Amino acid sequence: MTIALCPGSFDPPTNGHVDVIQRSLAIFDEVVVGVIGNPSKSPMFSAEERVDLLRKVFTGVDRVGVETFDGLLVDFAVGRGIDVIVKGLRGVADFDSELQMAQMNHHLSGIETCFVATNPSHGYISSSLVKEVARLGGNTDRLVPAEVQQALNAKVPR
Amino acid sequence: MTIALCPGSFDPPTNGHVDVIQRSLAIFDEVVVGVIGNPSKSPMFSAEERVDLLRKVFTGVDRVGVETFDGLLVDFAVGRGIDVIVKGLRGVADFDSELQMAQMNHHLSGIETCFVATNPSHGYISSSLVKEVARLGGNTDRLVPAEVQQALNAKVPR
Amino acid sequence: MTIALCPGSFDPPTNGHVDVIQRSLAIFDEVVVGVIGNPSKSPMFSAEERVDLLRKVFTGVDRVGVETFDGLLVDFAVGRGIDVIVKGLRGVADFDSELQMAQMNHHLSGIETCFVATNPSHGYISSSLVKEVARLGGNTDRLVPAEVQQALNAKVPR
Amino acid sequence: MTIALCPGSFDPPTNGHVDVIQRSLAIFDEVVVGVIGNPSKSPMFSAEERVDLLRKVFTGVDRVGVETFDGLLVDFAVGRGIDVIVKGLRGVADFDSELQMAQMNHHLSGIETCFVATNPSHGYISSSLVKEVARLGGNTDRLVPAEVQQALNAKVPR
Amino acid sequence: MTIALCPGSFDPPTNGHVDVIQRSLAIFDEVVVGVIGNPSKSPMFSAEERVDLLRKVFTGVDRVGVETFDGLLVDFAVGRGIDVIVKGLRGVADFDSELQMAQMNHHLSGIETCFVATNPSHGYISSSLVKEVARLGGNTDRLVPAEVQQALNAKVPR
Amino acid sequence: MTIALCPGSFDPPTNGHVDVIQRSLAIFDEVVVGVIGNPSKSPMFSAEERVDLLRKVFTGVDRVGVETFDGLLVDFAVGRGIDVIVKGLRGVADFDSELQMAQMNHHLSGIETCFVATNPSHGYISSSLVKEVARLGGNTDRLVPAEVQQALNAKVPR
Repeated sequence: MTIALCPGSFDPPTNGHVDVIQRSLAIFDEVVVGVIGNPSKSPMFSAEERVDLLRKVFTGVDRVGVETFDGLLVDFAVGRGIDVIVKGLRGVADFDSELQMAQMNHHLSGIETCFVATNPSHGYISSSLVKEVARLGGNTDRLVPAEVQQALNAKVPR
Repeated sequence: MTIALCPGSFDPPTNGHVDVIQRSLAIFDEVVVGVIGNPSKSPMFSAEERVDLLRKVFTGVDRVGVETFDGLLVDFAVGRGIDVIVKGLRGVADFDSELQMAQMNHHLSGIETCFVATNPSHGYISSSLVKEVARLGGNTDRLVPAEVQQALNAKVPR
Repeated sequence: MTIALCPGSFDPPTNGHVDVIQRSLAIFDEVVVGVIGNPSKSPMFSAEERVDLLRKVFTGVDRVGVETFDGLLVDFAVGRGIDVIVKGLRGVADFDSELQMAQMNHHLSGIETCFVATNPSHGYISSSLVKEVARLGGNTDRLVPAEVQQALNAKVPR
Repeated sequence: MTIALCPGSFDPPTNGHVDVIQRSLAIFDEVVVGVIGNPSKSPMFSAEERVDLLRKVFTGVDRVGVETFDGLLVDFAVGRGIDVIVKGLRGVADFDSELQMAQMNHHLSGIETCFVATNPSHGYISSSLVKEVARLGGNTDRLVPAEVQQALNAKVPR
Repeated sequence: MTIALCPGSFDPPTNGHVDVIQRSLAIFDEVVVGVIGNPSKSPMFSAEERVDLLRKVFTGVDRVGVETFDGLLVDFAVGRGIDVIVKGLRGVADFDSELQMAQMNHHLSGIETCFVATNPSHGYISSSLVKEVARLGGNTDRLVPAEVQQALNAKVPR
Repeated sequence: MTIALCPGSFDPPTNGHVDVIQRSLAIFDEVVVGVIGNPSKSPMFSAEERVDLLRKVFTGVDRVGVETFDGLLVDFAVGRGIDVIVKGLRGVADFDSELQMAQMNHHLSGIETCFVATNPSHGYISSSLVKEVARLGGNTDRLVPAEVQQALNAKVPR
């Protein structure tokens, strides 16, 4: 049985994240969504809120678990029995820094990273752009799951 | 009649910006230079100063208007009757983030973005590099219009 | 009135090409689709067939004309009174060679090139990939317009 | 059980290919190495030779099978019960064309493609560069497995 | 005699930096390692500590000098009689910003920049990633020279 | 004394090539321009013609020598006592393949490759584009040295 780890800040989860997790489910037996507790940029949503949002989005999907972690990604992955890390790739800027992280994580732990191509229709969606659009009063309905849109509305009243 | 929007922080306007605006004038009937009032990084020049500098640079050029805006770019564009957004492309790093913004703006408003290749001789000029060079005592005479050089000299005495 | 030129081999026209032409129509007053008569790679469809296919696809669309040309692109553009060349950008590999062509064409004629971002859902569609898939018996129905699919079926019997 | 397909021309197999196949074995239950029978460029080694070389390299490794195929990659993959396609990524030029192929293959069959980062020490090794070096009399000992070096020596006498 | 300048923050020096300096020594007669005194991001190690670490690493190597500077890189280079600036290139993201800096430095001073390819095995090592790994308790032994590892251990107790 | 090798097909030499050779002269003591005798694509100009053109362009410049070679670049470089290979970089597409070649050449011989940024005004000039423009009747006067323009006129009568 192969367990894949989809790590990220998920601040907040977007349709792009959901796409990567669903693609991982199509390939691997079990998917652990690993929520970075304290990302370097101060998050809009607390770790608890981000875990909660992801659990709501994947309610009823058996093979997905959502957990939060602090410290080194590979320490969490080794402790959790992860077989492979999965990241979505949108474009070349992603690619360069993700390749660097993948090689570092392999150096530190021997764990491989798999990259999956995201749905091209979601390529322009990122959490930071979603937050910026929401803060400026734009409509993010089709960029995030319904549960996330509700939470965004509560944080950023239109 | 086609109205193009050249948006940016213009902190300060450089010869690269002037080149993109002139290329836009060669293609479109009217060009609105849209100055982002409160960019995410705290600017060296106030919105009024940046608008004023751009107006001086384009004094006597009939088909250019300079305006400042806050909030979502596409809200300003729709309100102002803009037909197309124009951005200059210098290199691959630009390309990736600009493509993401273009697709997001099209998603939000249906407005297209056109990219024009900047004069290769201006490819290395960016506002942030100009400010860094000026702060460290370097000569920026050939990187910015004369009006901007005067304003830089006042902000950053050599 | 601004006349844009969408040049290409169109061997055959794809949904990606149609998208770029439609985006050009959303920006410019008139669009000339310029079909390269003798592209460097020997084409599957003759120049007449390619012009004919594009005319069928844009039947009833007033502001589009389809023409074929040989020789230098900028000579055709100057002779035809073109104001701007429009190219679609799919990714970074496109970007580098297209930027080179744009700067060369500007050097030779002073005519600007505008790049438009293609619909991300069409980013993976290219004429050469469509032909390869068709030759190997794959289904290209959703990659090309219906008129082109009929022509492909005639050239490459399944 | 997850079956991964590592497709390629393998003309000839290099240490870079071996690295990608070994990384796939570290992630997936079974790996099918799919040798393209008639690649677009006329190969130096016949399909039988390339299959034979790969089988020698992976002698004694239980979970690897080597097969040749013609026609559409996704037709082979569907017929063979493949769960995921695995490709190695060396750099940005790879990335762009591989992403295009991955999205096309997903469009045609719904099968996902996973990208693994190759060992950075093998990043500069490609089959075509190996053949060019060998033809010009260079030493390719550390670029290909011993079995392949023997076969290269036979094809390109030093 | 050709004097090369290897500039950087070196916060802290990594095996990647050592590789670039050694490659520069293989090409040029003398190498000045230029330590940026006050980089834009607040450093973990003081300028004195960074100079000291580099001097320890290159103890006994005749043709290397380590110096700190403030202000414009090209002012330091001109004052110090530098013939050429040397930078290591890891990937495409590096390339774009380094090319911009090289062209700006050439514009300001006429001094050329040479790029050397770093050892691919060190491509994923950056000072900021080393610090992040160290802070999160990871092992950086094979990423930095022994002298730097000792200093890191003192700054970031495991 | 440092001897640099500027290798290439030079079919024909362009202003971009001249720029790279002049930048190499600004850095290194002596520059050997190494003309690939039999490039993979059949050249427009014979090896003798290409050597002759380069010698004419650099007439009176003491520290430049022009030679032709066949076989492996690094074999020529080692035999000729070359200290470093110099290549010009125009963009990202160049970068990827040049980095691969540099690492292969270092693997085969231990010789380093230095990349210099070309004058941005020459970034769009390549030999193949120059030949294409000339064949289609375009003016290449400002893209190549005067001696090369004469030779082009003789090969491709306007």
